[in-house]
Amino acid sequence: MSDKQSTKPPAGTRDFLPDEIRRRQYVIDVIRDVYEKYGFEPLETPAFENIETLLGKYGDEGNKLIFKILKRGEHEQTGEADLALRYDLTVPLARVVAQYQNEIPRFFKRYQIQPVWRADRPAKGRFREFFQCDIDGLGSTSPVIEAEILSAVGEILQRLGFQDFVIRLNHRRLLTALLDKAGLAPGQHGEALTAIDKLDKIGLDGVEKDLVARGIDAGTAGRLMASFATPAHGSLGALTLLLAGHESGAAALRELDAIVDLVASTPVAAKIRIDPSLARGLSYYTGAIMEAAVPDLAGSLGGGGRYDNLVGMFLGRDVPACGFSLGLERIIVVMTERNMFPAAIAGSPVDILVTIWNDETRADAIALAAELRQGGLRVDVYPEADKLGKQFKYASSRNVPFVAIAGDDERSRGEVAVKDLRSGEQTAVPRAGAAAFVAGTLNREP
Amino acid sequence: MSDKQSTKPPAGTRDFLPDEIRRRQYVIDVIRDVYEKYGFEPLETPAFENIETLLGKYGDEGNKLIFKILKRGEHEQTGEADLALRYDLTVPLARVVAQYQNEIPRFFKRYQIQPVWRADRPAKGRFREFFQCDIDGLGSTSPVIEAEILSAVGEILQRLGFQDFVIRLNHRRLLTALLDKAGLAPGQHGEALTAIDKLDKIGLDGVEKDLVARGIDAGTAGRLMASFATPAHGSLGALTLLLAGHESGAAALRELDAIVDLVASTPVAAKIRIDPSLARGLSYYTGAIMEAAVPDLAGSLGGGGRYDNLVGMFLGRDVPACGFSLGLERIIVVMTERNMFPAAIAGSPVDILVTIWNDETRADAIALAAELRQGGLRVDVYPEADKLGKQFKYASSRNVPFVAIAGDDERSRGEVAVKDLRSGEQTAVPRAGAAAFVAGTLNREP
Repeated sequence: MSDKQSTKPPAGTRDFLPDEIRRRQYVIDVIRDVYEKYGFEPLETPAFENIETLLGKYGDEGNKLIFKILKRGEHEQTGEADLALRYDLTVPLARVVAQYQNEIPRFFKRYQIQPVWRADRPAKGRFREFFQCDIDGLGSTSPVIEAEILSAVGEILQRLGFQDFVIRLNHRRLLTALLDKAGLAPGQHGEALTAIDKLDKIGLDGVEKDLVARGIDAGTAGRLMASFATPAHGSLGALTLLLAGHESGAAALRELDAIVDLVASTPVAAKIRIDPSLARGLSYYTGAIMEAAVPDLAGSLGGGGRYDNLVGMFLGRDVPACGFSLGLERIIVVMTERNMFPAAIAGSPVDILVTIWNDETRADAIALAAELRQGGLRVDVYPEADKLGKQFKYASSRNVPFVAIAGDDERSRGEVAVKDLRSGEQTAVPRAGAAAFVAGTLNREP
Repeated sequence: MSDKQSTKPPAGTRDFLPDEIRRRQYVIDVIRDVYEKYGFEPLETPAFENIETLLGKYGDEGNKLIFKILKRGEHEQTGEADLALRYDLTVPLARVVAQYQNEIPRFFKRYQIQPVWRADRPAKGRFREFFQCDIDGLGSTSPVIEAEILSAVGEILQRLGFQDFVIRLNHRRLLTALLDKAGLAPGQHGEALTAIDKLDKIGLDGVEKDLVARGIDAGTAGRLMASFATPAHGSLGALTLLLAGHESGAAALRELDAIVDLVASTPVAAKIRIDPSLARGLSYYTGAIMEAAVPDLAGSLGGGGRYDNLVGMFLGRDVPACGFSLGLERIIVVMTERNMFPAAIAGSPVDILVTIWNDETRADAIALAAELRQGGLRVDVYPEADKLGKQFKYASSRNVPFVAIAGDDERSRGEVAVKDLRSGEQTAVPRAGAAAFVAGTLNREP
C-alpha cells in the first residue's frame, strides 16, 4: 500500500496533536460556558450544504473560495458539483431559521462552534479549515441584544485572561452620516468603506491617499479623515455636534448611546470604545458594528454587528438579528505567544502510570489501575513487562508525575509503592489508600 | 436573494437543534472523560485529506462512497478532484503516525471523536455525515492493550446507563482455524467470512444456506455451523478440544484466554462473551476482534479489534495496533428510545429570565442579570418591554423555571421579586441574595 506519498495534511489544514487540542478545548469550553450562562443555545449544521444554498451569498470572490463537492456515482464523470463545504455559520443559520421556524423560540439566541472552509491562499495564520465561534440573537431590534452580546464577549475574554482588550463600537448609519457630512456622494460610499476598512493596517494618511486614488477628491478625503481624528474620535458629544441636522446619523448616535448605557453596569463597560472609523468588511450590517482587539495582534479577535435583512433570505421575510463571531485560531495565537494557558493544561496526560512487574502480574496491574481510576485518578498502564527503569523513563518522558509499583513484596503486604518521579521519593502505602495518597499529593501543589 | 430554494439540510445529513445537541454533548463528554481516565489522548485531523491518501484504502465500494472535492480556481473546469472528505478515522491516524513519528510516544494511545462522511444511500438510521468515537492503542502487541480498551468501552456504556450490553470477543485466527477444521480451503475463507458476518441478521440456518449458495459444500457448511452452535459456543474449554492440533488456532485461543484473564478484575468482566462466530466485516484485523451490542438494536453499538499491519501503510514499517470505534448515533438512538438521558439535559436553557419592567429600567435588568450570573446562574434577559404576562408566558414556553421582576417598588426597597413559574409562588428577596435563593430552590429538587 505504501508508495511514499506525502503524509502532510492538505495545504492550509492542520493535524492537532494532544497538547494543541487541550489548548483548543480549554478555549472552546470557556466560550461555550459563558455563552450558555447568557442563555445562548447550541446549534450545529452539516459540514456541507446544497451548493445553491451557498453560491451567490458571499459575492464573486466568495464563490471562488467555496470548496465544491463532486456529484457521486455515474455523475462523477460530469465534473459537476452539487454540494459545498460550509463557508461561514451565518448562511446555515438563515437556512435553519427558515426550515424550523415553528420549532425555534421567538427570540432565538444560538451559538455555534464549528469549522468552516475557505480556499484562500494559505499563509501564516490563515488556514483553509478554521473554527468560528458565533453567537447571534434573532427576533428583536432591542439594543438589549447588543448589550448582552458585548457583555458575553467581554466576559469570555476576561475569563481567558485578556486584560488589555478593547471592543470598538460603531454604527453603520453613523459611518454613512460621516461620509455624507464630508461630502461623499452615495455612489462613493462603497469605495470609501473599503478604504476605511484598512485603517488598522495603513493608518489615517494611508486611507486618505487610498481614498484619493479611488477618485474621491482630496478636500473630501481630508474632511472625512478629520472626523476620525481626535478629539472627535470616540466622544459621543463631539460626534453629536458634528452630525447636528443629519437625522439618520443622529438616530444612529442615539442607538449607540443606548447600548453604552445598557452595558454600563456590566464588567465590559470599561472596555467599550466608540470608534466612528470602524467599518467592518461585510456589506450586510445595518446597525451597530463591533470588533474586539488587543494591541499585539494585527486584525481582530472577533467582530460582529446588527444585520436586520440577512437572516430572512430563505424565509422570505426579514428577521432582525445581531451577532458576533470569535476567531478561535486568533485567540489561541495570542494566548500561546503570551503564555496565557493555565499550567495544568500543558500538564501530564495521566496522573499515574501503573508499571508491570512481570507477565504473571499483568492482571493485577490492570486491577490496580481500575482501583486507582475508581478513586478518581487518570491512569495509564504500561503494556509490557520491560525493566522497571525503562518503564519509569517512559513515564518521565511523558510528564507523568507518579508511577505505581506492585512487586511481590508489596502485594504480599497489601501495599503499593508510589514513586513521585519529580522528587524521586518512593512511599509504600496501603493499596486501598493509594488513590487518595496520589490525589492528596497532587492537590497540595500550587 | 430568496427564490424559494429548499431549506432542508442535504440528503443524509442533519441539523442539530439545541435539545439534540445537549444529548449528543452529554454522550461525547462521558466518552471523552472515560477515554482520558484511561490515558488516551485527543487527536483531530482535517475534514478532508489529499485524495490519494484515501483512494484505494477502502476497496472498490469505498472508493465510490468517498466525497470528492473539485479542484479550485481555473482547475474547477477540469472536473478533477484533489481532496476528499474523511471516510473513517483510521487512515488519518495512520498518516499522522507516519508524519509525526518523532513527536508521538512509543505507546501512542489516542482517541478521536469527529464526523466522517460516506455517500451511502441514506436510510433510517444511516447518515452521510456521522460521528465516530475511536480509541486506538499503538506500539505494543501486549493483550494489556485489548484489556484496557475493553475495560474503557465497558465503563463508558455503564456510565451511560446500559445494564444489558455484552461485548462479544473473538479472534481472527480462531475463526480461520474453525474454517480450516470444518474443511474450507483457504480460497473459500473470504466468501465464508462475508456469509458469517450476516449471522446476526439471518441466523445459523440462513448463513448455512448462504454458504452453500456461495459454492461451499453442504457437509462443510454444516460442520462449520455446528462449531458455532451451543454448547461449544462461548466455552474456551470446548473450543480447545475442537481445535486440538491446530497450532495457530490454539495460539489464538491462548491469546483470548489472556485477555479474559486480564479483564477479570475489572467491571467489564461479566460482560465479555467469547463468540467464535463473530466475524467483523473489515479485512484488516489480525487478532482479537470485539463488538458491543444490546438486545434491542440490530447491529452493534461499536466494534474493533487488533490490526497489526494497517497503521504502517504510510510509515513503511508495521506498527502493532488495537482499536475500538463507538457509534455515537447508535448509542443516542437506543438511549433516546429507552429514555436513558438524565432529566437535567432535557431541562431549561437557563435558570431564570430577567424581565423588563419598562424601557427606562432596561439597564437595571442587565445589571441584575450580571449579578445573577456572578452568583453562578444561567440567565436570559427578555429583550423588550412587553407586558409582564407575555414575558412570563415566553419563559414558561421555554421551560425556564424562574423569572425575576424588578419593578419600581422592588427597586426602591433593594429587592427583587422571584417567581417560580412551576408553582406560581412569588417571593420578594433582597437583591444581593437573589442568586442564592434561586440556586437553593433548584438544588433542593430531586
